[in-house]
Amino acid sequence: MKNLNFEQTKIKDGFWGFYSDLDRNAIVKNVYDRFKETGRFDALRCGWREGMPNKPHHFWDSDVAKWIEGAAYLIEAAPAPDLEALIDEMVEDIAENQRTDGYFNSYFQTIEPSKIFTDRRMHELYCAGHMIEAAIAYHRATGKDKLLNCMLKNVDMIYRIFVEEQSAAFVTPGHPEIELALLKLYEYTGDKKHLELARFFIDQRGSNEREEKNPCNQSDIPLREVSDAVGHAVRACYLYTAMAMLAKIDGDDKLKKACDRLFHDIVNSKMSITGGIGADHSEEKFSYQYDLPNSDTYNETCAAISLSMFAGAMQEMEVNSRYGDVIERVYYNGFLSGVSLDGERFFYTNPLEIDRKKYARSTYQPICERVKVFNCSCCPPNVVRMLASISRYMYTIDGDTVYCNQFGESETKLQIGGKTAVLTQTTDYPYSGKITFHYSGEPMTLYVRIPDWCVEYRGDTENGFVRFALSDGDSVTVDLPMEIHFIEANPYAQDNSGRYALQRGPIVYCMEEIDNGENLRDITLLENSEAKVVRENGIPAPVIYLGAERRPAADHLYRLKNSQRISFTARLIPYFAFANREATDMLVWTMVR
Amino acid sequence: MKNLNFEQTKIKDGFWGFYSDLDRNAIVKNVYDRFKETGRFDALRCGWREGMPNKPHHFWDSDVAKWIEGAAYLIEAAPAPDLEALIDEMVEDIAENQRTDGYFNSYFQTIEPSKIFTDRRMHELYCAGHMIEAAIAYHRATGKDKLLNCMLKNVDMIYRIFVEEQSAAFVTPGHPEIELALLKLYEYTGDKKHLELARFFIDQRGSNEREEKNPCNQSDIPLREVSDAVGHAVRACYLYTAMAMLAKIDGDDKLKKACDRLFHDIVNSKMSITGGIGADHSEEKFSYQYDLPNSDTYNETCAAISLSMFAGAMQEMEVNSRYGDVIERVYYNGFLSGVSLDGERFFYTNPLEIDRKKYARSTYQPICERVKVFNCSCCPPNVVRMLASISRYMYTIDGDTVYCNQFGESETKLQIGGKTAVLTQTTDYPYSGKITFHYSGEPMTLYVRIPDWCVEYRGDTENGFVRFALSDGDSVTVDLPMEIHFIEANPYAQDNSGRYALQRGPIVYCMEEIDNGENLRDITLLENSEAKVVRENGIPAPVIYLGAERRPAADHLYRLKNSQRISFTARLIPYFAFANREATDMLVWTMVR
Repeated sequence: MKNLNFEQTKIKDGFWGFYSDLDRNAIVKNVYDRFKETGRFDALRCGWREGMPNKPHHFWDSDVAKWIEGAAYLIEAAPAPDLEALIDEMVEDIAENQRTDGYFNSYFQTIEPSKIFTDRRMHELYCAGHMIEAAIAYHRATGKDKLLNCMLKNVDMIYRIFVEEQSAAFVTPGHPEIELALLKLYEYTGDKKHLELARFFIDQRGSNEREEKNPCNQSDIPLREVSDAVGHAVRACYLYTAMAMLAKIDGDDKLKKACDRLFHDIVNSKMSITGGIGADHSEEKFSYQYDLPNSDTYNETCAAISLSMFAGAMQEMEVNSRYGDVIERVYYNGFLSGVSLDGERFFYTNPLEIDRKKYARSTYQPICERVKVFNCSCCPPNVVRMLASISRYMYTIDGDTVYCNQFGESETKLQIGGKTAVLTQTTDYPYSGKITFHYSGEPMTLYVRIPDWCVEYRGDTENGFVRFALSDGDSVTVDLPMEIHFIEANPYAQDNSGRYALQRGPIVYCMEEIDNGENLRDITLLENSEAKVVRENGIPAPVIYLGAERRPAADHLYRLKNSQRISFTARLIPYFAFANREATDMLVWTMVR
Repeated sequence: MKNLNFEQTKIKDGFWGFYSDLDRNAIVKNVYDRFKETGRFDALRCGWREGMPNKPHHFWDSDVAKWIEGAAYLIEAAPAPDLEALIDEMVEDIAENQRTDGYFNSYFQTIEPSKIFTDRRMHELYCAGHMIEAAIAYHRATGKDKLLNCMLKNVDMIYRIFVEEQSAAFVTPGHPEIELALLKLYEYTGDKKHLELARFFIDQRGSNEREEKNPCNQSDIPLREVSDAVGHAVRACYLYTAMAMLAKIDGDDKLKKACDRLFHDIVNSKMSITGGIGADHSEEKFSYQYDLPNSDTYNETCAAISLSMFAGAMQEMEVNSRYGDVIERVYYNGFLSGVSLDGERFFYTNPLEIDRKKYARSTYQPICERVKVFNCSCCPPNVVRMLASISRYMYTIDGDTVYCNQFGESETKLQIGGKTAVLTQTTDYPYSGKITFHYSGEPMTLYVRIPDWCVEYRGDTENGFVRFALSDGDSVTVDLPMEIHFIEANPYAQDNSGRYALQRGPIVYCMEEIDNGENLRDITLLENSEAKVVRENGIPAPVIYLGAERRPAADHLYRLKNSQRISFTARLIPYFAFANREATDMLVWTMVR
């Protein structure tokens, strides 16, 4: 069972068409410009010297790599000679400056050559991992092998230092990432050495006596024994993704069971309703179970991305709609909120409430408006690559059985019965829940995920999927009722007690002060009022207008409970579309009666 | 118009009898023991040298002074030779070590003699202020004048340094307090110099070019122009108290109006329902209007005390029940919570919610159980003196007119028509709201405050008081309906939107996890269920049992809003009685339906 390679699917229009176009026409270019301005690409030349502007940073290579990977996906989907020329230039710089032993890291070679592989907290292996992913993507997109060859040489060097010589000052990376990259590389090259190196890093983590037991980077317990998702959320889910990939490749049931426990722990106790993870801003980490604060949650864009990667890897091991459910939740909400609707600005953290006055007096002060670039700018290029590979989680294939996990106007070419078949989706999802599949090809079985939010669906499902037998020329339609739902959180999630989130289809909604006036927490939505679901320019999902009420202004600070209320119509916008006008307060969890 | 001196009223029994006994039998002794152990009394001998334990701290003299003041009040109410002997010993030490120029501060004389009056942030004038109050109290209680003489000499020195020579490195105290002490001293001695020195400090504050403009200690704006209560809450209300006292003495209308604005700002936008103030823990200060957080509010015990002092001073300028309302709110709630029911342990901060898990991951971690002593132990001796002077705000007298502001079983001697009269209150307030006044003496007019919480009272009031003409032998009864009320906060107080506080009479209630199970925020009280108001051992105010419901445990993190609830009987205890068993979560603001 395997997720279809995303390049087999052409996104055509609709919601994901909007974002694919935005990525190609704006985001990839904007991120390039900001990275160019800040010297990230120039750093590859290893020519920075004291006194020059734009001193390189130890994780800049990963920013560049993610940008290359994303641009490569765009090139693969449709020619983009301008992007290709830019990448070729970068690859030249990398090839030219790679050491003869295969090492490449622009920061360490330029600034601290004596410190190579001496400090686990530095991101050398993390950068290498991202560059491996970039190399695979660019090779697949263009057939050009220069970067791939560089990285193969680089991996050989890492194997030698870490496995054979054990001459580095540490055993496993402080920031996991290379593990999943090596497993991708193994899938691409078939070279067992790549598999072995990934397995080494996973086996040693939390087990090797030479390393400190640190839950913050998941090094406290041997990975096959873990049950609790802990520590830095991005590191965690990059690692868990690799664990799931390795469990599948090795048929390692113990590792698979650890992944099951981790996935369960995250999804059932540590995930915001937006799919955001990493509630504790203090170390960008998972908090304790059910601690899901709103205004000061961290919920880094990269963490949401890493959770969908983890779910995507799990989806290749087990037929269960829960994985597609999580990916959908992340993609339509806490991931997309990371980029503005014009593709120019980004969020690093994605709170579920903005209270500007409270922020102003707080020690933790997240930004309330997206910005063009961050000093630590891991998220923007991660958005580039994830948007360019939207369809990677759309289908899973197992022989002549195809699982449709995600919905969107698209055309997919796949191999059924040894021949090329074509499966299309026609839908304006998420405006409606009607999805028509048209199929041409050899007979096959199509399973379509019935999302967890679709409680009104009345058909039979297997593991959360509905089954269709398709032959050449068949069309089938799934019509998911798109009701407005008010969602409650577990009673242990104390921050949301007495509050509800409005969700319609996969989209979680929020209210902004700019539409609804001040004191958002004092607004009560009226669940029996008639909702208007409206298509509006500039937002690729419906806006909802709903009857609401608020308390009138009061002279006194305290008074008897009373029922005096002012009626008004609340405007609710998709959560992912918040903060696209001016700085304003925002709220997801609201009162309902 | 003047508050009756507290020593004219003898507390006899009931609620305040409980606390008066507790103060005399436990608190004053426990605080003495802790201060003795930590070297605070020994420090008066100025004999500490490097290498010895218990290095003195620059505000220790104020701790000692507040303890002396409180003990003096107890001595005045009933002989206490043991306390008197202890004080005499301290006074000897002070007198012996006071410099010939009148300066006394055990810290500076012992540790940093070269730094005397060089640093505004140090608490020299604050300590002097408290010692002046102690000296007056002890002189009044015993007639012994040694400490008073010391402090008169000390004040002469301060006058010379600050007014005549202006030779200190600063103009006004960093921590106000001495202003109100000097005005008390002026009332006691009639010496204009004491009034003049107080007026100097008030006039210069925020006006003098030599001083930095710092809102945190109320030095940013000339005091007659202020409107917003800002900065460190204790400093603020000690200062505002002095401003009100000076406004009355000088008939200074501009200063009175500033006090009016400040009082309005605090009471209508910056005061917890418990009477606690200082919501922003970061600098123990007032936050912006309506920012009234629960779990991380500061609400220092001393700040509550200072607010009742401010209201008490205002009450001497204007007949309005609002001052008595605030004093009552503070005394029965956010002040009393500062001491345990056995008089052994203290809170410095008084949150309205305890969420231990949240605290554990927070940068701000208030204690969840009272402790015997703090390093910065200003609150415990403040509790000693405030409990020993409970009756100071009970009556205000203006010729033959008496205002009863506070209620409690008591006997008061006062001068009416040139003769001694006796006014008694018979009541089990706050169990019931029935208060019977018996009077013997020349004819007089009694006004009785109708509390703001008593919305069911149907008689005529003037400025919030009900009027009685009393002659010798008369008895009158006021019967305040004691209903259970659910109180809502202003819609701008976002932290409490959708939540209500249960209040009965002057008492605000809370729920503890130890009684009600976990997830307190998920509990809904049923306002139409039958409440049981119960007298229980160990708590001098009723405990309330009320129908409630909570959501059952859920497997999933998110699910559709539903009405499934588990019924149970909630136990609500007076807020002041929280945290008297083991560490447990606590909540004031709850859901109600």
